[in-house]
Formats: sequence, structure tokens, C-alpha cells
Amino acid sequence: MKNIYTILTPELFSLYADALVQKQVVVIDVLRATTSMVVMLENGAERVNPVASLEEARSWGEKGYLMAGERNGFKVDGFDFGNSPQEFTKDKMGGKSVVMTTTNGTHALSLCKMARSVYIGAFLNCAVTCDALTNEGGDIYLFCSGWKGFFNLEDTLLAGAMAASLCQMGAKVADDATRAAIHLWNQAKTDVAGFLSDANHVQRFQSMHAESDLDVCLKIDTSKKVVYYVGGELVTERP
Amino acid sequence: MKNIYTILTPELFSLYADALVQKQVVVIDVLRATTSMVVMLENGAERVNPVASLEEARSWGEKGYLMAGERNGFKVDGFDFGNSPQEFTKDKMGGKSVVMTTTNGTHALSLCKMARSVYIGAFLNCAVTCDALTNEGGDIYLFCSGWKGFFNLEDTLLAGAMAASLCQMGAKVADDATRAAIHLWNQAKTDVAGFLSDANHVQRFQSMHAESDLDVCLKIDTSKKVVYYVGGELVTERP
Repeated sequence: MKNIYTILTPELFSLYADALVQKQVVVIDVLRATTSMVVMLENGAERVNPVASLEEARSWGEKGYLMAGERNGFKVDGFDFGNSPQEFTKDKMGGKSVVMTTTNGTHALSLCKMARSVYIGAFLNCAVTCDALTNEGGDIYLFCSGWKGFFNLEDTLLAGAMAASLCQMGAKVADDATRAAIHLWNQAKTDVAGFLSDANHVQRFQSMHAESDLDVCLKIDTSKKVVYYVGGELVTERP
Repeated sequence: MKNIYTILTPELFSLYADALVQKQVVVIDVLRATTSMVVMLENGAERVNPVASLEEARSWGEKGYLMAGERNGFKVDGFDFGNSPQEFTKDKMGGKSVVMTTTNGTHALSLCKMARSVYIGAFLNCAVTCDALTNEGGDIYLFCSGWKGFFNLEDTLLAGAMAASLCQMGAKVADDATRAAIHLWNQAKTDVAGFLSDANHVQRFQSMHAESDLDVCLKIDTSKKVVYYVGGELVTERP
């Protein structure tokens, strides 16, 4: 039987790093990195390379990749896109190669090299990702990107939603962090946006006048794309 | 207006260390260190010195202090007591000096030297501690000791109970960790033991046949002792 663990922030990653070898990990950055990644592929991007640093992003940019990225929630100067999922439309993504760097999500991804499989988790592709996790062997680590190392509610809610769904498919909760995430999801699920209305990141979005991104990021199961992170690149076929 | 923050585990402490200068912090280790500390003072201990290491504990032991402590939940060889609150009875504590070391709680305490005031938080003294926090100036940090760096449910529930009570007295939730703790407390408060029945630490207790400690540790507001950690020692008068 598969065990489910939840890593509440990247600051806690070192506690799990050894255990993660040959396991499955889902990187979650609901607002907005992993949501945007799913949207890019949904809308026809040919290649998407998440990278941790601005320097890496610029070096891919010099090779002809479109550059997407933010720091502290704001688009990076000279980049083609910020990190709003609404920017990555079909006409801009079709057949394109994109490099992406963000404050939290791409950092979390860069930590997961030892895992057997790394999935990109978003509310958009929650159900298909849970199916894929269930079909593959190995314990499951739900890895919340948080905000600069701090716990955040929105990533924990998605971890809870995924854990609840995985339990229904026979997986087993293995730690208190996953229990807490499921309890929070059970409270939130009938009105996720309402539950998150006073969360720190949502308040940050309101101050940035980016509320419409929230609606996109909280849509559930609108995508059938399972997204894997393999060899520094996102792919939609099981490696 | 006072802000409330929650530090979910000592592994996250470094994110808060600078902010903690001259603030109020409540160290929480429900199962069982901070509960036992409150019980010791409630039952007449003259001095209680929490220390992080076994070596420090033994050096106080050589000075005539009774030694209490556990590692991985089990009493340390050669010590007078383990870490069960039921051991610290009136006849054993009256007028005595005690040194105490535990896996998680005394480690968390040792991190808080820069704070203005450090409180010992337990369900037993939740209400009186919230009153004291409200009467003193400064933002409030609820610091959960966790288990070897991992998040745990029982400490988070007490943080949620304290935060909910502090909000009613006019303090303000400042982070998502505190929001999550309050949500969890609201789900748990009508049956705390039931809510915790599948938590990792409770399972650990069951395997140690220490379930009766749980009842003691989850009693709410049975003590009027506000306990401060000052200069390496616990005291019940505001410093």
C-alpha cells in the first residue's frame, strides 16, 4: 500500500530528502507556478524548462526560448511573460519553447532530483495526476512550495485534495501534515475561494490587482494533462 | 494591535529568528514536555531548569537536582523521572529542584533566547497564558515543538486554541500557519482526543502504553499557572 506524506514548505525538505529516493513527488505551487506550467502545456507549448535562477533563464533565452518569470510576484524586466496563467494563451504558446523561473515553485522543483518521478500539481489537473500516482509504484510525497519558505494555505489545500482522493484509491495517510491538509481541504472544498479569502498570498494578489488569476488557479480538473518533470524539462508522457 | 504568528516546527525557526527580538513567544510541546513543566510547578517544584542536552541535565543532577527526561519518548537511564506528567506528583515535587531534558520541547526553548518573554504553553494553562500575553506588549509567536523537526497535530491544535482566544481579546492573525491552526482547532475542539486519535504521536503513545498521559495532556484550563522561561529557569511570576 502506498503511503502519503506532505512536505509543508521547502524549508522542511531536508527532513524528507533521503526518504524521497525512488519515490513519487508532486510539486505544488497553486499561485501560480505549477498552475501556469499546466496551462502552458495545455495550450500547446512544445518545450517548457523550469529553472531556479534568473541567470539560467536568460541563458535559455539567448538560445531562443521565450522567457517567463517573476520575483516577489512581479514580472522580471526584459522577460516575455510574468507568471500569470492568463498570459500563456494558445496563440502565444503553440509550438513554442519556454523557460520559466519563479520565487517558490521552480526552487522546489530543483530540490527533487533524487525522486523516481516528479509531477507538476495544480487544481487544474488534480484528478488525472492522482490517477497517474496510483498507477505507478512508490510512496507519494506532496511537496508544497510555500512562500519564501513559509507555510501557505493554498498549496496545503491542494495537497489535502490530492491526499483525500488518493486515499479513496487505496493509499494511506502516513503523517500529521497530510492529516492536517485533508482536514483543511474538507473544510474548504465547498467554497475554496471563500476559504482562502484572507490568506496571505490572496491578499498579496489583491494588492497586485491580480484577482482574476485566482479564479483560473482554483479551477478544478479542467485539464487532462499529467505533467512530469524529467531531465530539467516538463513532459506530458510518462517517462 | 498585536499580531499572531505560528511557527509550525523548530525546522522553520530560522525564518522567524530575527523577527522574534523583543517579541513574545509561547513554546508548545503538548505531548508532553510543556505539559509536564506546568504540572511540576503546579505541584510545588521550587526550581525547574529545562536544558537541551543530556550532559547539561547530568551536570545539574550532580548539584542535587532531580533529573527528568526522555529521548524518543523513553525515560533516560539513570534519571529520576521520564517525561510523564503523572510522575510529577505533589509529594515528589514539593520544594524540589528539577532539571529536565526532552527530545523536542527543551530544544525549542533553547532557540528562543532573543525573545522578550518566553511562555510555557499547555492545554492546562491555555486561558491564563492568553490573558498574560494580552496584558503584555508585543507581537505573539506560537512556537510548536513538533517531533524531530516534523509538523505535529497536537501542538498545532493548541496554537489554534490560543490564537482563537487571543483574537477574541483583540489580537490579529498575521500568517497562514495561524489561520490553518485556527481552522483545525475549530474542527477539533468539541472532541480533541477523537480528532487526535490517528495522529502520529498518539499512535506512538499507544505503542508505549502511555495512553493515560493523553488524558492529562488534553485537559483544558485546569491550571492557573502562567509559566515563564527566564535565564534558563521556569518561573511563575512575571519577570
